[in-house]
Amino acid sequence: MDWRRLKFPIFAIGAQVAFLILFGVLGEYGDDSKPIHPGTSEGSLKLYPYFQDVHVMIFVGFGFLMTFLKRYGFSAVSVNLLVAAFVLQWAFIVRGIIHMVAMGHVKFAIYLGEMLSADFAAATVLISFGAVLGKASPLQLLIMALVEVVFAQINEFIGLYMFSAQDVGESMYIHAFGAYFGLAVARMLYNEKHEEAKSEGSVYQSDIFSMIGTIFLWLFWPSFNGGAAAGDEQQRALINTYLSLAACTIITFAMSQLVDKRGKFNMVHVQNATLAGGVALGTSANMPLQPWGAMLVGCIAGVISVLGYQYLTPLLKAKLKIHDTCGVNNLHGMPGILAGVVGAVAAAMAKPETWGESLYEVFPLMVPMANTTEFETAVDLYDVTRPGSGRSAIIQGGYQMLALVLTLVIAVVGGAITGLLLRLNCCDNVQGGRMFDDREFFIVEGQGYPDVEGHDHDVTLRERHGDNDTTKTPMLEG
Amino acid sequence: MDWRRLKFPIFAIGAQVAFLILFGVLGEYGDDSKPIHPGTSEGSLKLYPYFQDVHVMIFVGFGFLMTFLKRYGFSAVSVNLLVAAFVLQWAFIVRGIIHMVAMGHVKFAIYLGEMLSADFAAATVLISFGAVLGKASPLQLLIMALVEVVFAQINEFIGLYMFSAQDVGESMYIHAFGAYFGLAVARMLYNEKHEEAKSEGSVYQSDIFSMIGTIFLWLFWPSFNGGAAAGDEQQRALINTYLSLAACTIITFAMSQLVDKRGKFNMVHVQNATLAGGVALGTSANMPLQPWGAMLVGCIAGVISVLGYQYLTPLLKAKLKIHDTCGVNNLHGMPGILAGVVGAVAAAMAKPETWGESLYEVFPLMVPMANTTEFETAVDLYDVTRPGSGRSAIIQGGYQMLALVLTLVIAVVGGAITGLLLRLNCCDNVQGGRMFDDREFFIVEGQGYPDVEGHDHDVTLRERHGDNDTTKTPMLEG
Amino acid sequence: MDWRRLKFPIFAIGAQVAFLILFGVLGEYGDDSKPIHPGTSEGSLKLYPYFQDVHVMIFVGFGFLMTFLKRYGFSAVSVNLLVAAFVLQWAFIVRGIIHMVAMGHVKFAIYLGEMLSADFAAATVLISFGAVLGKASPLQLLIMALVEVVFAQINEFIGLYMFSAQDVGESMYIHAFGAYFGLAVARMLYNEKHEEAKSEGSVYQSDIFSMIGTIFLWLFWPSFNGGAAAGDEQQRALINTYLSLAACTIITFAMSQLVDKRGKFNMVHVQNATLAGGVALGTSANMPLQPWGAMLVGCIAGVISVLGYQYLTPLLKAKLKIHDTCGVNNLHGMPGILAGVVGAVAAAMAKPETWGESLYEVFPLMVPMANTTEFETAVDLYDVTRPGSGRSAIIQGGYQMLALVLTLVIAVVGGAITGLLLRLNCCDNVQGGRMFDDREFFIVEGQGYPDVEGHDHDVTLRERHGDNDTTKTPMLEG
Repeated sequence: MDWRRLKFPIFAIGAQVAFLILFGVLGEYGDDSKPIHPGTSEGSLKLYPYFQDVHVMIFVGFGFLMTFLKRYGFSAVSVNLLVAAFVLQWAFIVRGIIHMVAMGHVKFAIYLGEMLSADFAAATVLISFGAVLGKASPLQLLIMALVEVVFAQINEFIGLYMFSAQDVGESMYIHAFGAYFGLAVARMLYNEKHEEAKSEGSVYQSDIFSMIGTIFLWLFWPSFNGGAAAGDEQQRALINTYLSLAACTIITFAMSQLVDKRGKFNMVHVQNATLAGGVALGTSANMPLQPWGAMLVGCIAGVISVLGYQYLTPLLKAKLKIHDTCGVNNLHGMPGILAGVVGAVAAAMAKPETWGESLYEVFPLMVPMANTTEFETAVDLYDVTRPGSGRSAIIQGGYQMLALVLTLVIAVVGGAITGLLLRLNCCDNVQGGRMFDDREFFIVEGQGYPDVEGHDHDVTLRERHGDNDTTKTPMLEG
Repeated sequence: MDWRRLKFPIFAIGAQVAFLILFGVLGEYGDDSKPIHPGTSEGSLKLYPYFQDVHVMIFVGFGFLMTFLKRYGFSAVSVNLLVAAFVLQWAFIVRGIIHMVAMGHVKFAIYLGEMLSADFAAATVLISFGAVLGKASPLQLLIMALVEVVFAQINEFIGLYMFSAQDVGESMYIHAFGAYFGLAVARMLYNEKHEEAKSEGSVYQSDIFSMIGTIFLWLFWPSFNGGAAAGDEQQRALINTYLSLAACTIITFAMSQLVDKRGKFNMVHVQNATLAGGVALGTSANMPLQPWGAMLVGCIAGVISVLGYQYLTPLLKAKLKIHDTCGVNNLHGMPGILAGVVGAVAAAMAKPETWGESLYEVFPLMVPMANTTEFETAVDLYDVTRPGSGRSAIIQGGYQMLALVLTLVIAVVGGAITGLLLRLNCCDNVQGGRMFDDREFFIVEGQGYPDVEGHDHDVTLRERHGDNDTTKTPMLEG
Repeated sequence: MDWRRLKFPIFAIGAQVAFLILFGVLGEYGDDSKPIHPGTSEGSLKLYPYFQDVHVMIFVGFGFLMTFLKRYGFSAVSVNLLVAAFVLQWAFIVRGIIHMVAMGHVKFAIYLGEMLSADFAAATVLISFGAVLGKASPLQLLIMALVEVVFAQINEFIGLYMFSAQDVGESMYIHAFGAYFGLAVARMLYNEKHEEAKSEGSVYQSDIFSMIGTIFLWLFWPSFNGGAAAGDEQQRALINTYLSLAACTIITFAMSQLVDKRGKFNMVHVQNATLAGGVALGTSANMPLQPWGAMLVGCIAGVISVLGYQYLTPLLKAKLKIHDTCGVNNLHGMPGILAGVVGAVAAAMAKPETWGESLYEVFPLMVPMANTTEFETAVDLYDVTRPGSGRSAIIQGGYQMLALVLTLVIAVVGGAITGLLLRLNCCDNVQGGRMFDDREFFIVEGQGYPDVEGHDHDVTLRERHGDNDTTKTPMLEG
């Protein structure tokens, strides 16, 4: 074994040992799981089914969605698992330290709510992974994860706690951030040899595997947007997301035929654009948009997403040298921006007459200041208990927009820096012809591995007698 | 692009715009999700895990179950998604209007319970889809959905509210209805050129994809039968369905070997007949059948279903010109009738001595009339609070049978009418040799697409240089 | 049809009829599902989401995990369903009889908690199935299930009720037991003709199918370890398992590259060793190990499991004639032993100062005896209500070790006896060249079925004209 091949194991084991030490020094069980005088679990365990829905989205959803590449299925689903398991742990630590600094605590607590947040953090990195799928080594991806989580969590902290810009399904803080961070990394990793990568593209079976991911993402998106909410906000988030996805799906199929010369459906659109309705509603899912409003947002998202896949992705590659493997710009990027804008507009138009109690639950800083007649009114009419800052709707909308802009800036700058870092030779940069090919990092026995031209028979036989992948799995062959 | 190819997009977009307007004019958030003075979510959110189980059944279960055809996997899982997303929205409207008319309301409410009902409505149409799988265009399917939902919801309204015929897992109102509606459509669409469709049949991988659907349907069927119930009725529905499915599975495997000359298992039976135990218990799942009773129903369902696949399906095709692609008669049709009969018999034999409180909870019209001594007794012994109609067990059983018969009549008549409608030239009727072939409506790159004889190599290469599917996905190839 | 082919149907139908009678004579609805004066469902229905998570693990998880063999996908996922459905019912009866004898009842109750236990019992047998995958007939597997459930449930009863050795995720009573029982059976079924079985090994697509199983097992393992617990014990079980799995995953990927000469990941490790962290924590998941402690256990499990797959499995086959198809020793066996040891050590070091209320909740026999000052203290400080036996920590640890040792002994002895039984000619023993081949028990149409050399084209064509699998599915071809 040569030194190059030791880099990944050393990095991974080193990181894992560091995680273990940091959890030991800084982590502790949350109130409801500590052994001595624990809190009651009655309330907190209600989160668990929502957490598991999101958990399925992260590992099955993202993992299988990316198996569409014909020769990259092992990497898609396995490295998705690796990166997510890495981010889960790292996110606890980064989020823990941020909150310790902000709150003056000396330990961070580990509880179900943080498990959901850690899964959300994994989503951010996996979206970026989609932009560089097939072009980045596992080592590069772990390094990217290490850096991205810090940027993403700082961005979320500023937006959520300093701007009080609400984003219940985190379409700004996760989807838009992950997409533009990933696109910036993809731009930095771009090299002209992309053209040589004949392994890109799908085969019939890989497109069906990918649909496993699509469907599970589609099903559980209401839990993604509503899991962290409560009461009527939660129910609205579930209903709005459900309706938005349904509407988006119809429009996606219609648009897919419209943009094709022969009037046929495109599996890329079915796999991805059908989900844009979930992203586009992420910021405003808990707001009283009305059912038709949610459906309208879903329709717009479907149009944007299909047009993006059809026309914008090739353009980005040709003009800006951004090669976006999974088209994350179309599924997470533009729909994420749409989500932020919808949220800002809804906030700017919010008023107690139409939003009722929800106004102050969704936007706590809009509660009038203490000792004002407005506060008295709010207490009387809208069950408010604690005073806020008396923020106006326009100002809240402005902060929502500000959070969106900041997210985009931090994502692009952070992604560009990270991309530069990943271009260093030590990071196992993947070269042209070896891209989109599982054999670069996985033991692949020739059987069933499709050749680059589409027939899987002769070439794989030839390859088996070559020196590329003759290593056999001992258990299976020994 | 020619005019023929614009029909689907125009229809889909038109329908979606109409849905949006109808939701805007007629729909409103339910009590627990409205922003002003919302109800408490404590109770209603308990439905959500059951809803998500059913949601998985509709989209993963039905979608992947139908991927067994070797060249129709894209259509199976994608058009399943399309049709279900279409029905979800349409069912809210149709159900809403029926209840508005019946109750004199001016708006219909959108809440979790209706989301579950909308998913149930989708199941009805997807079962009919199974009967015409590979033979109907997406346009035909959306038109079928448009008509079928109206027939199905009217039938359910008559059965459930006018006859008070109970059907907790909707085996009559969904499974039997969907199956016979679909079979009637299939009869109308039949043409002799079916024999030319060499694409029918499975390959090894497609049969495994199909098992994803089978297993998820099998797992969550207790939630399907019990999701809408409560208390001990719900627990019985979960337990009875679980036991019925387990028993049905053993019998299915045994029967599958028995009917095969060489004594081998048939994947068609494994994929489908194992589920008949869930259908057959749908009407009576919440009744106190006793565990052994539930298992017995499951055993009978397994026998009927395997025999149906083995002997009846070929006969229906040869004698009645009904070509039932997925064999819905064997999975949903006959087991659905069995379910209705079991429910009717159980109702006719029900008495307070053995059913206790459950009798009046399951059959509210059997509560004695107000101001009778029987009502006083019921109040004292069985926690009854509101008077009923004093229906006898025999009469309740009679209404159960009546609901079953009405369901079959409306399904067959409605399906026949719909089938005639779909034969119109404007509906993109699929012709003989182009049936069961994804390339009719999807962009299919040649790679991995099995040829009709079973080798996937040469033919697909030839096709790639032909003019059939040279359109490439820009993102993947550009 | 010859007599040999009637054996399986007769056995299966006979067993199912016996189950039906035994349920009829001995079974009854539990308190919360009985029709007359039912208990309140408020508490018991909380178990249902955990049950469904475990349900998915048993049928999707185990079923698809075993589809990695290239020519054994039908059997893996279908026979998994068959065996599990068989064990579900049988486990109710065996557990029911044991508890009837122990408690002096005349009936056994059927309720949600027992449904979870029945699924757990299925896991035991499915783990053993993994050891003999491809080498045992369906008939042999049902006979094995019949015997194994009796041994496993007696072992669990002794450990749990007589030794009061705790095992919240049943890593001793299920994982270790199932693994060593299966290995003993595999030893007995070993014959030199294993070398002839060219069908063993995976193809590209089958390894991706297998990942469906891996991911769902990985996701829901917290529910497996925590489903039967409550309060803070449950929350700790969820958190500890989640962290252990994440840590184990990182270490698995690192180790997988380290042990490979070319430094590549091995899908066998990804599919299996990533899960060892869930097994290794099963006994102690609800104990206050601290988050870092759980992660450390996960790391150790990952190391052991990868090393086992790489070096021990070939050795077991070569030296001990134990051919372990799925490597259950590495995923369930050694990590199960590790789990038992961790649990015993944690118990031996447990004290009220660090464990608080949890000590007496986890180990009820450690509650001091009645009328002692220690009991008074426990009542005052740790909310204890009922006296125990005043067991010391060291003694509790000793009983934990004793339960582990007893488990291993009963598993090996029981498995060896069962294996001898299965070697009888009447059990349809599978011979050398016919192993790992779906065509032995399933109708397999030639299409897509990979040949033993890796190309699926010519050979399958030839076979289709041979006499091996010309039986066609009537529905698809007729």
